[in-house]
Amino acid sequence: MHPSCTLVIFGATGNLSQIKLLPALYHLELGGHLAPSVRIIGFGRRDWSDEHWRGEVRTSLGEQLGERADAQVLERLLERLVFVEGDLEADAGFERLASRLRDTAEGFPPNLAFYLAIAPAFYGEVADRLATQGLHRPEHGWSRLVVEKPFGYDLESAEILDEHLRRHFNEDQVYRIDHYLGKSTVQNVLVFRFANLLLEPLWNRNYIDHVQITHGEARGIGSRAGFYDGVGALRDMIQSHLLQMLTLVAMEPPPSMDAEALRDEKVKVLRSIRPVPRQAVHAQAFRAQYRAGEQGGERVPGYLEEEGVDPHSTTETYAALKLYIDNWRWRGVPFYVRTGKRLGATNSLIAIRFRHPPQQLFSDTPIEQLKPNWLLLNIQPNECMRFELLVKQPGLTMRTQTETLDASTCSIGRDQMDAYEGLILDVLQGDHSLFLRSDEVLHAWRVVDPVLKLWAIERDYIHTYEASTWGPAEANRLFDKEDQHWRDGLDA
Amino acid sequence: MHPSCTLVIFGATGNLSQIKLLPALYHLELGGHLAPSVRIIGFGRRDWSDEHWRGEVRTSLGEQLGERADAQVLERLLERLVFVEGDLEADAGFERLASRLRDTAEGFPPNLAFYLAIAPAFYGEVADRLATQGLHRPEHGWSRLVVEKPFGYDLESAEILDEHLRRHFNEDQVYRIDHYLGKSTVQNVLVFRFANLLLEPLWNRNYIDHVQITHGEARGIGSRAGFYDGVGALRDMIQSHLLQMLTLVAMEPPPSMDAEALRDEKVKVLRSIRPVPRQAVHAQAFRAQYRAGEQGGERVPGYLEEEGVDPHSTTETYAALKLYIDNWRWRGVPFYVRTGKRLGATNSLIAIRFRHPPQQLFSDTPIEQLKPNWLLLNIQPNECMRFELLVKQPGLTMRTQTETLDASTCSIGRDQMDAYEGLILDVLQGDHSLFLRSDEVLHAWRVVDPVLKLWAIERDYIHTYEASTWGPAEANRLFDKEDQHWRDGLDA
Repeated sequence: MHPSCTLVIFGATGNLSQIKLLPALYHLELGGHLAPSVRIIGFGRRDWSDEHWRGEVRTSLGEQLGERADAQVLERLLERLVFVEGDLEADAGFERLASRLRDTAEGFPPNLAFYLAIAPAFYGEVADRLATQGLHRPEHGWSRLVVEKPFGYDLESAEILDEHLRRHFNEDQVYRIDHYLGKSTVQNVLVFRFANLLLEPLWNRNYIDHVQITHGEARGIGSRAGFYDGVGALRDMIQSHLLQMLTLVAMEPPPSMDAEALRDEKVKVLRSIRPVPRQAVHAQAFRAQYRAGEQGGERVPGYLEEEGVDPHSTTETYAALKLYIDNWRWRGVPFYVRTGKRLGATNSLIAIRFRHPPQQLFSDTPIEQLKPNWLLLNIQPNECMRFELLVKQPGLTMRTQTETLDASTCSIGRDQMDAYEGLILDVLQGDHSLFLRSDEVLHAWRVVDPVLKLWAIERDYIHTYEASTWGPAEANRLFDKEDQHWRDGLDA
Repeated sequence: MHPSCTLVIFGATGNLSQIKLLPALYHLELGGHLAPSVRIIGFGRRDWSDEHWRGEVRTSLGEQLGERADAQVLERLLERLVFVEGDLEADAGFERLASRLRDTAEGFPPNLAFYLAIAPAFYGEVADRLATQGLHRPEHGWSRLVVEKPFGYDLESAEILDEHLRRHFNEDQVYRIDHYLGKSTVQNVLVFRFANLLLEPLWNRNYIDHVQITHGEARGIGSRAGFYDGVGALRDMIQSHLLQMLTLVAMEPPPSMDAEALRDEKVKVLRSIRPVPRQAVHAQAFRAQYRAGEQGGERVPGYLEEEGVDPHSTTETYAALKLYIDNWRWRGVPFYVRTGKRLGATNSLIAIRFRHPPQQLFSDTPIEQLKPNWLLLNIQPNECMRFELLVKQPGLTMRTQTETLDASTCSIGRDQMDAYEGLILDVLQGDHSLFLRSDEVLHAWRVVDPVLKLWAIERDYIHTYEASTWGPAEANRLFDKEDQHWRDGLDA
């Protein structure tokens, strides 16, 4: 059972809250993870009573869960719900919130978690208004602020936002979520790397040729043009999620699993990434935009035809970077990070390519060139671990063939817990390990900033790729050697 | 197509010839591996004509191959066959053989391969009589002598046999077969170790806790009491096959795949095995004998009840050794070799156990002790490669579980070529790589000799095990640590 707390959701009637947070809270209720005294306050502009909100949530969760919904669990959750009407841009609602929280008759737990499920533009202001009410330093218990990416638009704006939040909240009160990076992904990569003796000796520049980290999405931008256009794949995914994945793959073994130890190691990786000089942006970065195409037999529009997108936009929906980590472990090993919308599939894959073994022993055999080994870690949609090794072909002649060694999970998809469940629990427990520390965010911006700056100036031309492909062939220019190529998935 | 040659089979009417050599020759014929001029001479005591022998072979192969027999291929093979009557212990037959070989009207290819499919006691004598006829140094072409294990009964007798063969035949004319070690096994292990970058960095005392090599046989001694009783598992299998497997696992990468380079490396391993001192035999060696039991629902007799076995015999049907290789790569890593009859299954397995990773990172989690990684190479009956790694259990708690990564060949058995086909071709081609060099044989005897000597003296007691089990529990005394245990198969 986890600590008691009052969870206040700003933007309680919004999309994130309905699609992610409330279902996650339902599952935590179902799993018995919520202490009986936990209360949940929805804060929004609607003039709703507690009862009305409960009705809305009952309907929404009922629709989402369908037959899986357990009526008793749902009612237990609904009893925790309270609604406070308020405008983010005025103090009135915050005063009402503060006075209800302080009303001993209502009996809200004194620990306060504020979940900002709202546009990032309001983060600073909400933090200010909470502070005005003294809610950042409650007399009893703690106060925590949960925010979602994007944390800024570039290095400079990120520094301003960071400074704003920290006027009233200390670093240890702030929980920056990268919800793509669920607890299970992080823990799986850590267990895989550090609970198996087999891997650590190989995990360095002596044996690894290069690393690829791909996060592909089959869907387009959908109705998110308002947010996405002018932001693009580099800011939206690479600065956050893909650099996080990179730090997990590249970091040194931390002394413990606690948040500061983990984040210290992640920051060390980000700080060791060689800055991309302006003249190397073309060699180390690639962007493109999806055109119309077919997906699942249906025609899908190109990016420029999406509703709400500027028809002359050069916002990239595909971005790839080649990065170097200039430390003892990784010097000279390129890390390729890549993401895009309307790609061939929705998946998240870490692909490690090992170097060629010496050919010597087989020089007198019909084996022409030994294919290098690969280690593939598929993160989404299913968790899969695969080694690609060489074995001898059956028969009298000495030839090799690639054999894949798969974990059993490769064929059966796991029933994955949504990242939000674990993340909400972590906030209640004060575990920062999956949340980004201020310096992590800023160092990640430092990595992508030179590319963003040049791309912002060069707005005359952008490569395009057909929907449902893995980006343009020109993206191969990031590779140094002829035998290097993108791994789009386990089998491609 | 391979060199032309006259293959002379001594013991042509015997078991090995019928069950192994002639079927292998049929398959070589089927595969088009025999040059058109290749002739095969059967040498035996029966007063048979060429035609009669052909009839016998037609019947025997017809029965063994059943519907798979291709009549045309069979007739092509039969046309090659010639029979020479002769007694191994008299010169007359050898004279007849020599005169037919020299008869230009018969047109036998001048290259001569003598396959000694006879009891080892006759090897020396046959070599002498061949030499008397000058067949060890033909005027045109080469002369080769093929012998099967056992090569002696202990170090001393092996040295005597070796010396006898080499009176007339040079080392490069002698082909010593270990037919358990087919071409495919050797090549698979070499490809696996040296064509994959992943393994070589791990393949040493820094990462490997210990190595197990098991060759289990489900069958008992059957009708072989005459050979087996007084010989036992250590001589029959460990001195030859299992020490050969050990050399493949332990050897340094050879500079090439040629026979001398491979055999040089194998000999280096055998020479680096720490001799077992007399007082350590009990700690490093274990023997046992099977008792009656059930196998496949039927009662099977104990060793002492087998027909032809001395009822007071202490011949071991199970033997296990712990050996140390005192070189830079392996110092301190125990190698366990083990074989037995009437064990739980017929299989050949190389099992590598890796050391424990440091627990540190997971010390604050519910993970109590990290299980070590294993790498399993099953050689027979199916070729399978398996890694056993740890992954995180699904769910919110940090626990690990073992995940097996299997090659696809683990579930589907391969259609294995019989070892003899490849070995016969190697003799024709003069490829010694799968045959044992004299010094290999002698060094292998040196390894087991101290154990044989002590076991020969201590004949008062021998452990027993029930048929269809994996030997007595007492065999565990060979392990040093509590968390070490035998791997009987991929899943056990």
